[in-house]
Amino acid sequence: MKLRLGMVGGGQGAFIGAVHRIAARIDDDYELVCGAFSSNAEKSKASGIALGIAADRAYGSYEELIEKEKQLPEDQRVQVISIVTPNHAHFGPTKMALENGFHVILDKPMTFSLEEAKELEKVVAASDKLFCLTHTYTGYPMVKEARQLVRTGKLGTIRKVYVEYPQGWLSSFLEGGDNKQASWRTDPGKSGIAGCMGDIGTHAFNLCEYITGLETTQICADLNIVVEGRKLDDDGSVLMKLNNGASVVLTASQIAIGEENNVKIRVYGDKAGLEWEQWDANTLKVKYADKPTEIWRTGAGYVSSFASHNTRTPGGHPEGYLEAFANLYHNFALTIKAGLEGKEASEEAQDFPGVKEGLRGMAFIENVIASGKSDVKWTKFTV
Amino acid sequence: MKLRLGMVGGGQGAFIGAVHRIAARIDDDYELVCGAFSSNAEKSKASGIALGIAADRAYGSYEELIEKEKQLPEDQRVQVISIVTPNHAHFGPTKMALENGFHVILDKPMTFSLEEAKELEKVVAASDKLFCLTHTYTGYPMVKEARQLVRTGKLGTIRKVYVEYPQGWLSSFLEGGDNKQASWRTDPGKSGIAGCMGDIGTHAFNLCEYITGLETTQICADLNIVVEGRKLDDDGSVLMKLNNGASVVLTASQIAIGEENNVKIRVYGDKAGLEWEQWDANTLKVKYADKPTEIWRTGAGYVSSFASHNTRTPGGHPEGYLEAFANLYHNFALTIKAGLEGKEASEEAQDFPGVKEGLRGMAFIENVIASGKSDVKWTKFTV
Amino acid sequence: MKLRLGMVGGGQGAFIGAVHRIAARIDDDYELVCGAFSSNAEKSKASGIALGIAADRAYGSYEELIEKEKQLPEDQRVQVISIVTPNHAHFGPTKMALENGFHVILDKPMTFSLEEAKELEKVVAASDKLFCLTHTYTGYPMVKEARQLVRTGKLGTIRKVYVEYPQGWLSSFLEGGDNKQASWRTDPGKSGIAGCMGDIGTHAFNLCEYITGLETTQICADLNIVVEGRKLDDDGSVLMKLNNGASVVLTASQIAIGEENNVKIRVYGDKAGLEWEQWDANTLKVKYADKPTEIWRTGAGYVSSFASHNTRTPGGHPEGYLEAFANLYHNFALTIKAGLEGKEASEEAQDFPGVKEGLRGMAFIENVIASGKSDVKWTKFTV
Amino acid sequence: MKLRLGMVGGGQGAFIGAVHRIAARIDDDYELVCGAFSSNAEKSKASGIALGIAADRAYGSYEELIEKEKQLPEDQRVQVISIVTPNHAHFGPTKMALENGFHVILDKPMTFSLEEAKELEKVVAASDKLFCLTHTYTGYPMVKEARQLVRTGKLGTIRKVYVEYPQGWLSSFLEGGDNKQASWRTDPGKSGIAGCMGDIGTHAFNLCEYITGLETTQICADLNIVVEGRKLDDDGSVLMKLNNGASVVLTASQIAIGEENNVKIRVYGDKAGLEWEQWDANTLKVKYADKPTEIWRTGAGYVSSFASHNTRTPGGHPEGYLEAFANLYHNFALTIKAGLEGKEASEEAQDFPGVKEGLRGMAFIENVIASGKSDVKWTKFTV
Repeated sequence: MKLRLGMVGGGQGAFIGAVHRIAARIDDDYELVCGAFSSNAEKSKASGIALGIAADRAYGSYEELIEKEKQLPEDQRVQVISIVTPNHAHFGPTKMALENGFHVILDKPMTFSLEEAKELEKVVAASDKLFCLTHTYTGYPMVKEARQLVRTGKLGTIRKVYVEYPQGWLSSFLEGGDNKQASWRTDPGKSGIAGCMGDIGTHAFNLCEYITGLETTQICADLNIVVEGRKLDDDGSVLMKLNNGASVVLTASQIAIGEENNVKIRVYGDKAGLEWEQWDANTLKVKYADKPTEIWRTGAGYVSSFASHNTRTPGGHPEGYLEAFANLYHNFALTIKAGLEGKEASEEAQDFPGVKEGLRGMAFIENVIASGKSDVKWTKFTV
Repeated sequence: MKLRLGMVGGGQGAFIGAVHRIAARIDDDYELVCGAFSSNAEKSKASGIALGIAADRAYGSYEELIEKEKQLPEDQRVQVISIVTPNHAHFGPTKMALENGFHVILDKPMTFSLEEAKELEKVVAASDKLFCLTHTYTGYPMVKEARQLVRTGKLGTIRKVYVEYPQGWLSSFLEGGDNKQASWRTDPGKSGIAGCMGDIGTHAFNLCEYITGLETTQICADLNIVVEGRKLDDDGSVLMKLNNGASVVLTASQIAIGEENNVKIRVYGDKAGLEWEQWDANTLKVKYADKPTEIWRTGAGYVSSFASHNTRTPGGHPEGYLEAFANLYHNFALTIKAGLEGKEASEEAQDFPGVKEGLRGMAFIENVIASGKSDVKWTKFTV
Repeated sequence: MKLRLGMVGGGQGAFIGAVHRIAARIDDDYELVCGAFSSNAEKSKASGIALGIAADRAYGSYEELIEKEKQLPEDQRVQVISIVTPNHAHFGPTKMALENGFHVILDKPMTFSLEEAKELEKVVAASDKLFCLTHTYTGYPMVKEARQLVRTGKLGTIRKVYVEYPQGWLSSFLEGGDNKQASWRTDPGKSGIAGCMGDIGTHAFNLCEYITGLETTQICADLNIVVEGRKLDDDGSVLMKLNNGASVVLTASQIAIGEENNVKIRVYGDKAGLEWEQWDANTLKVKYADKPTEIWRTGAGYVSSFASHNTRTPGGHPEGYLEAFANLYHNFALTIKAGLEGKEASEEAQDFPGVKEGLRGMAFIENVIASGKSDVKWTKFTV
Repeated sequence: MKLRLGMVGGGQGAFIGAVHRIAARIDDDYELVCGAFSSNAEKSKASGIALGIAADRAYGSYEELIEKEKQLPEDQRVQVISIVTPNHAHFGPTKMALENGFHVILDKPMTFSLEEAKELEKVVAASDKLFCLTHTYTGYPMVKEARQLVRTGKLGTIRKVYVEYPQGWLSSFLEGGDNKQASWRTDPGKSGIAGCMGDIGTHAFNLCEYITGLETTQICADLNIVVEGRKLDDDGSVLMKLNNGASVVLTASQIAIGEENNVKIRVYGDKAGLEWEQWDANTLKVKYADKPTEIWRTGAGYVSSFASHNTRTPGGHPEGYLEAFANLYHNFALTIKAGLEGKEASEEAQDFPGVKEGLRGMAFIENVIASGKSDVKWTKFTV
């Protein structure tokens, strides 16, 4: 049985919408049945037809989608709505969808502002529907394995984290041209108060808290607008403290020329350390004081159920970004389906990012922007 | 419009069948409508239901599948049949499918014997349907880029090729237990006359001829059965000559303990060289006599249309084995669809392996086994 | 003609003294003729004998060394004195040696305090003898190449620097045992006010200013004592601003368990970026917005005179840490010898670290410690 | 006490002579006292003076060197003679030196022909002096560690070896110009019957037998002259069998354009495998069937005495080619000095290549050339 999926945003030319659709297809859990792919009804219809959905289920707005779908018989009606619009258009459809009985998958960052995030937290709490936020990197099997190594005490007490997300694609004033991605991501009206920090800094932040299982308590941010004329930060570095006293260095940049998208994290405890980077995503390095560094690999027999559950192929067949994304969709589907059957999904299946991660991500953005403007070194991290 | 897909083999527990289905889904070109997933009708039905296809379209044999599907109205009938059985069960369903008007996607090696391969070549030639052989590695964008660099003269005259395929999974007598993969792959009755050379040596061979655009003319093989009790070669090395005089060293092993699946190729011309390996599949290294080695990457703006056509995401978002497999399915679908519309597919779309590659692969197997037994150093490569 | 070399410190069991002696030998520019290897006259003599120098030239103190050597005929007298004692014993012998007519090679950090550093700057200025500070990493050919790429404009305007120096050897309370290295390096009475920042942070700082040719203007430091009972920082992160507005993230740690000594720097300009790390010291990666990353290599024909001058072997014969160290000794010797001949040494030869680098390194230590204690985010970097 | 060293060959402009001298200096075991640096007496003198040796000990021929040095008092006379001439000039000085009471260090390959090698074996056997052949790669600490892993049974029974030595520097007809290295190395009158196989194939062969502790019994060679006009093989591949039945693929090329000097070996047993390559010489990868691959590193506490004895610096300070070379010189010196003191050197010190390795290397050359010409696949490896 496939879950019936709808989509808000993600019309022709969008990057992340196509990624969501592939992710939804990989494990065959969903069938795309409707969408509001564009705020232009014509364009939405064209996208819908190209995607093979019924013409009358390509709507001109998310409101229309929700209203019309609600009127369909329960066994035809959309069940899960993916929202892949720019940040300023996250809150509205998410709230409405949840309040009208639909599960929601939402692209990160969760909302346009922390205020919206707090309100959304209440909406999710009040709803009996499920909510998934696509912090893709936590879908990688070796990121899950990293978290397991911490949880099972293999690293001992966590002392230090380095997490970095270097990109170079905004090294020049791309938003001056017709690059759609550059335009909205550097536009405060669409992205919110943060640029680089909202777009990729939040991923780094999420990765840190996800793997360590710790929470940030203090931050000290240095944010920069490097490219002349840009309206939002395109580079930043954040010193942080975690709630066990460990310290973190988080860096994110979109002007690190020549870098692609190589998010990387290193975590050091008092017993062992670990290192993971997206370039070599199927590898996790585990480091010791007095033993050789080990190269842990997806698909190997020695990895935990959290890694193996999120891998499709034997060792040596690299899985990548799309499979990591698919893991979020698959685990969300497993959890929904378990619910439909009155069961509880496995711990592995329930391990997908949700409203708590979204709220903390938005808090990260607000805190980091405030700290960036402050002359005081350490700012308390508040939600 | 999706193509209606059927599958022969690939029931529960099979590895490669699941891979084919993911590959078929990734780019949304196909809809799985029927299958003969097992020679046991019960099991086939169970697999079919689990896969969400109509109960009456899960057949107990490929013959039944083809007969029944032919009787369906044209707009419901399966259009493309994927055959993912062990080698000894390739020829029968492929021939029957083609002769009854269905396009075929077949797992490699093409047949059980060269004789069958020659007959299949005729069947394909006589049919107006299309045939695709899933030599996965040629679906990788950077393998296609490598071929383009050779085709466009960037490497100059090809002089030397090293191609290797090291695996370690058959380091012990796994077929003595209940490992299904190990059992059929080491069984002459199911695999044919070659073990390692048929299973992975053919991939290395195909990669070499695909990238260089050259054909093998002579070979000298050293084949080994390393693990006691095994019936087929589990390790081998082949010296080869190409039709321009270049020399090749091809190695494949299933007893290289600790190795996963890291197929790798290096090609050297008189102007430049290149290196690609599956571990880091999104990278192609290009080497020069007097300039720095270059790291070419998928998703970059400077790669050819053959690489970019076969990539879904921007640089730095790794795509892997499943996407490479999906590229075969996608290109095959594009070519079929172009035909349905009376158009010719693009050169990029038509670039998928077919009967010629399958025939040469089977010739490789026969020649390599013969050479392995021969006391003469060089054997002429014959088809 | 070899320069006559003396050594202060570096007796049996010392690490860095042996390194200095190998460095001095590699290019055959020096002959070790005397030393005050230990403050214990017996031990000094024993070390001297083991090193093959005349028994009467193994002195019990640096004062004795300088006094006695001065009385030797000019053609026998020591010419260059290497000082390899712990930090608190740098200033005295360096000052006395320079004031008595000897060239000095001094291990870093230059002095025990910034105050001493300022006084030493005056001593060097007043002396006609030369002074070299062994910031080893700037002796690597690919570090010099990196600096050349910046100097010649290949990177454009520098925007961002990441420099890191992770070590794990002080992850536990080693100074509680009999580890001599751990003991003095964590002892404020011997190391000075900084631990990790003085020992390796200064290297990272020097590397950043050396390659970029820019000067630090502001800093914001987070220093930590992670291991209980330790007296000096064993971990720290420093945000910095350079005098062209570029921002820097400098991290150094001695509790990054499992890490060896992999100092690494990445520099991004508006035209290109670069990356170098000690693990793969013979490689420099150069990165572009729209071209493949390039792997520049020592020994290649395309590198600048600054790299080739500091390499002994053709490409592919790795040179390492000892050769980088030897480059400092060799360049210092070339410069001294040129002076003896009334000539000016080449620009390549004169490129070794001196009192300016030492002074800035000590200022880094004082500034970083002050910033670490401050509640204000940005502290002006003062010398 | 330093050993007095003389050198035959290695005058100005020579590559390997300078490498030998650095190697001799690094550990301070030798003092260069005399040489016959060139067959031109003037040039020899000029080289000698530049190297700082007494003018009357720079001789015009090796015969003169040996004759004159013999007449010097025993405590001034040269003790060890390094012979760094092209291959055709190895045998004469080596024989004469040994027969006249001098220890000899000789560059590889040992002689011009197998016949000479056999005679030299007798000379060495009859002499009470020691003989060292500079197969540099066995001087690397991680190559020694690899051998220890095999010796101590960690790999189990050896089954497969891949050893490769790719270079690209002879991709064009360099010997047509004034490249001195290219000229003699491609000249049958100076190099002997083999080009690439003698120059670097022998290194690969030695590495294989050294690490595995096994001997080659059969070979099958494919040798090529790729560059037009060249007189000796510049590329070749050799299939081999070892005396326990294991199979080997040995490749060496000088036309692998863009490759530097990255000799690499992989050895697989029935329990574990290993991988080492010169590019990352301080690393040894150890691979298992069911555990993560391990990254063993020089300078680590867990390596054997054979690795630690041959390393000067703590982990993370890369040592390279020159230090590997120095290890040969140092171990030879330790063994000579032990003998002078009537003691036996440690097993670690005695582990340097000698006449047996030289003889087998020359046998490799003769066998490989014969096999290259033969139509029979397998040739018995004879000495």
